[in-house]
Amino acid sequence: MMTPGKGLPLFGVILAGGSGTRFWPLSRSQYPKQVLRLLGSESLLQSTIERLLPRIPLSQLAVVSNAAQGDVIRLDLFRKGWGDIRVWLEPEGRNTAAAVGLAAAFMAQDRDADIMAVFPADHHIGNQAGLFQALDVGAELAQAGYLVTFGITPTRPDTGYGYIRAGNRVEGGADGFQVAEFIEKPELSRARAFLQDGGYFWNSGMFLFRREVILEAMARHLPEVYQELRLVGEGKQSVEAAYQNIPSISLDHGIMEKAGNVVVVPADLDWSDVGTWEAFYNLAAKDSRGNAVVGRAEDMDSRNCLVFAQNRLVATIGLEDVIVVDTVDASLVCHRDRVQDVKNLVERLNSQNLTESVHHPTVERPWGRYTVIDAGPGFQVKQVEVAPGKRLSYQWHHHRAEHWVVVQGTALVTIGTETRRVASNESVFVPLKTPHRLENPGSEPVLIIEVQTGSYLGEDDIVRLEDDFWRLAEDADNQENQK
Amino acid sequence: MMTPGKGLPLFGVILAGGSGTRFWPLSRSQYPKQVLRLLGSESLLQSTIERLLPRIPLSQLAVVSNAAQGDVIRLDLFRKGWGDIRVWLEPEGRNTAAAVGLAAAFMAQDRDADIMAVFPADHHIGNQAGLFQALDVGAELAQAGYLVTFGITPTRPDTGYGYIRAGNRVEGGADGFQVAEFIEKPELSRARAFLQDGGYFWNSGMFLFRREVILEAMARHLPEVYQELRLVGEGKQSVEAAYQNIPSISLDHGIMEKAGNVVVVPADLDWSDVGTWEAFYNLAAKDSRGNAVVGRAEDMDSRNCLVFAQNRLVATIGLEDVIVVDTVDASLVCHRDRVQDVKNLVERLNSQNLTESVHHPTVERPWGRYTVIDAGPGFQVKQVEVAPGKRLSYQWHHHRAEHWVVVQGTALVTIGTETRRVASNESVFVPLKTPHRLENPGSEPVLIIEVQTGSYLGEDDIVRLEDDFWRLAEDADNQENQK
Repeated sequence: MMTPGKGLPLFGVILAGGSGTRFWPLSRSQYPKQVLRLLGSESLLQSTIERLLPRIPLSQLAVVSNAAQGDVIRLDLFRKGWGDIRVWLEPEGRNTAAAVGLAAAFMAQDRDADIMAVFPADHHIGNQAGLFQALDVGAELAQAGYLVTFGITPTRPDTGYGYIRAGNRVEGGADGFQVAEFIEKPELSRARAFLQDGGYFWNSGMFLFRREVILEAMARHLPEVYQELRLVGEGKQSVEAAYQNIPSISLDHGIMEKAGNVVVVPADLDWSDVGTWEAFYNLAAKDSRGNAVVGRAEDMDSRNCLVFAQNRLVATIGLEDVIVVDTVDASLVCHRDRVQDVKNLVERLNSQNLTESVHHPTVERPWGRYTVIDAGPGFQVKQVEVAPGKRLSYQWHHHRAEHWVVVQGTALVTIGTETRRVASNESVFVPLKTPHRLENPGSEPVLIIEVQTGSYLGEDDIVRLEDDFWRLAEDADNQENQK
Repeated sequence: MMTPGKGLPLFGVILAGGSGTRFWPLSRSQYPKQVLRLLGSESLLQSTIERLLPRIPLSQLAVVSNAAQGDVIRLDLFRKGWGDIRVWLEPEGRNTAAAVGLAAAFMAQDRDADIMAVFPADHHIGNQAGLFQALDVGAELAQAGYLVTFGITPTRPDTGYGYIRAGNRVEGGADGFQVAEFIEKPELSRARAFLQDGGYFWNSGMFLFRREVILEAMARHLPEVYQELRLVGEGKQSVEAAYQNIPSISLDHGIMEKAGNVVVVPADLDWSDVGTWEAFYNLAAKDSRGNAVVGRAEDMDSRNCLVFAQNRLVATIGLEDVIVVDTVDASLVCHRDRVQDVKNLVERLNSQNLTESVHHPTVERPWGRYTVIDAGPGFQVKQVEVAPGKRLSYQWHHHRAEHWVVVQGTALVTIGTETRRVASNESVFVPLKTPHRLENPGSEPVLIIEVQTGSYLGEDDIVRLEDDFWRLAEDADNQENQK
């Protein structure tokens, strides 16, 4: 791990909202890109935080996400022992201006830093030392009152990124440049010209600024956003109420392109926005025919394809420039030139209220995970895995009974007030409306097959009486909201 | 249904062997193309028989298949009430010469007809009247001692079929021609020339000949096949022993191309060999962009594609000439020009002993069906559906215990010698080595979730004590073979 220089203290804001559309079917609206383990054993969110920790302590970090993804974001942090990190939830995503504004409004007085450092949670950054160096340079400029962006030196005429044209060097010798122009994703010919001309950078979407400076800029350029969020910060309005009046606009469009005090700090980061399946393909290892393969795949003569097989066998023959993503309940087959349309297709699925756009059959929980393995009228079958030493909440259901067959390990089962051990190949019945609890007292995972029967089998039919995690408070919140 | 003319009596031989490779992943080695319901509610085998019944009575029909597929072929016939039809099983497929030779050897003395009519089980025939007309013409020629093939007038320069060049008209006025030449699948230019020149037919793979005539031809041109099968017919050798010495060769190559008395009868059948996914695509209904879709699919801008989604959601974007076949446990994505390679790819899977090339997660049984919905070390979970009025065999297992939870209907369950009703939301435990039986006494399907636990969970750990179907005799056969 790199040791950072002794720069100015920073308050890190991780933008981890997202609609779960661009990496569908691996991402879902309740399982966004940020928690996917796309590039190794850590999720993109975990990697983002891990990378910052030598420079910004956990106590000075916050994650901004949205309500639908709160549980899965919290779980992702919990798994790394980062359960204490601040998680600020928007009622729904309103792009980056609102998210940054909400963070500025929420920043507590106990923070050590006045400089906000804003990081999207979905970047690959290979050069951590370069990041820290850029942060130190940027922090000085932010301290001096600038709105700081980071510019990546382009290595190819990529048409998937926005560009920044650098102007004059900032006075005072710091390695920063006035921003002459923000340029949206260009045509290929134009992108080529940028590379040839020099002085152009990819817009990384990372920012540094003093809290007061960004709020002042927001007050001037996005007064309607500023006003709503000021009331939230002062405790005079709920976030829900504010967001009803807040437009969806990016920080770039809403503020950066209009403000005068914007500078770009060139950053050598080995950087990539992991924004589409195409970006994933570009980052992935490939064989001699240019194919990137994850999972169980068998190919004949395909070229420059990505095959992502989550659990089933995928066979491909004679394809070129095709992306195949195969998950338990949904598959995507997409020409590589069309990855930008995945989002549009998934929005079409959303409008049909299809489960496949909302969540996976396997749902991760703080105590382990469950997978819906079968379902029909009046019944549902789950494989439930309880991690060693963990237990589910003490709970009961209005509308369903449950049969549990332990198939691996020994569970500690409470039915009503009686607790007993249930070993592998033993079963137990949990009647309707009876409080119950499932616990794994051992050191190996416990696996049970749960057959639910009843008139309603939704996940929201849980009355939690005790919980080891954060969910009792959340239930109370939900009840509060439903009043 | 068409009423046939009063032609000569025929003995129908349906060739229903196959390796389950060309329609993978919908076909499997234990679930061949012949039993797929590709073109409607009937399997290809059922359609083939249904089409013939007005002309050839059930008692004069036999199906030739191979041992690995015997159960699934019998079940396919059983479902139509054709349980009495002869099923002749080869130990393994040896192409059409052996299959026809075996049928000739097995044809019992009680047959009404001496003329064998040979039909592959995987043809689409739209014009039944045309078929009967061709059969009548062909039967006269077969009676006169010819080896008769049926020639389809080509409608396009198809390079996927073999061709027959017709010579002189047969003497005596019948609508048949001497075969001047059999031509293997030609290049496109050559196929075009055939169409232009006329006098060429597609080789349909259907044949008519007197039993003595084909045996005589076999004795002359394939003496090693003839000798082995003659011993089988005389009861002096087992089929297994014979097949160890029988080469794999087609009737066309082995006999038809060499014999002098071969004629072709032009047949107007609206015919298609349902031989590949491309053939299926050609037969399927298409939308305005040329896409054929079966199942739950969502597309953006694809053209001339086939999407076959067995049960999951398949999304496609910007594809051209691609075939996507998505099944519960395996997917195929293949360029349409490469369908001939599906077979080769599946042979590669076979060599790796992958379940996905052998059978589906859902297995059909005479009493209903079961689906493996989950499996892990020491356990397996099945959804078991018992059809109304049906029951499984009275059986026990050496190595596994079973938990049953009824989730739909009311089952009649026997454990040991005690029988009782088990209603929906009730469960029952079947200990190791305890005889048991599951029955559906009602008029709706019974659904149970079965959790198996044990050291070995293979399907062959069944000791059947009683069975309503054909399987006790089969078990006895298997034990006989294992001596």
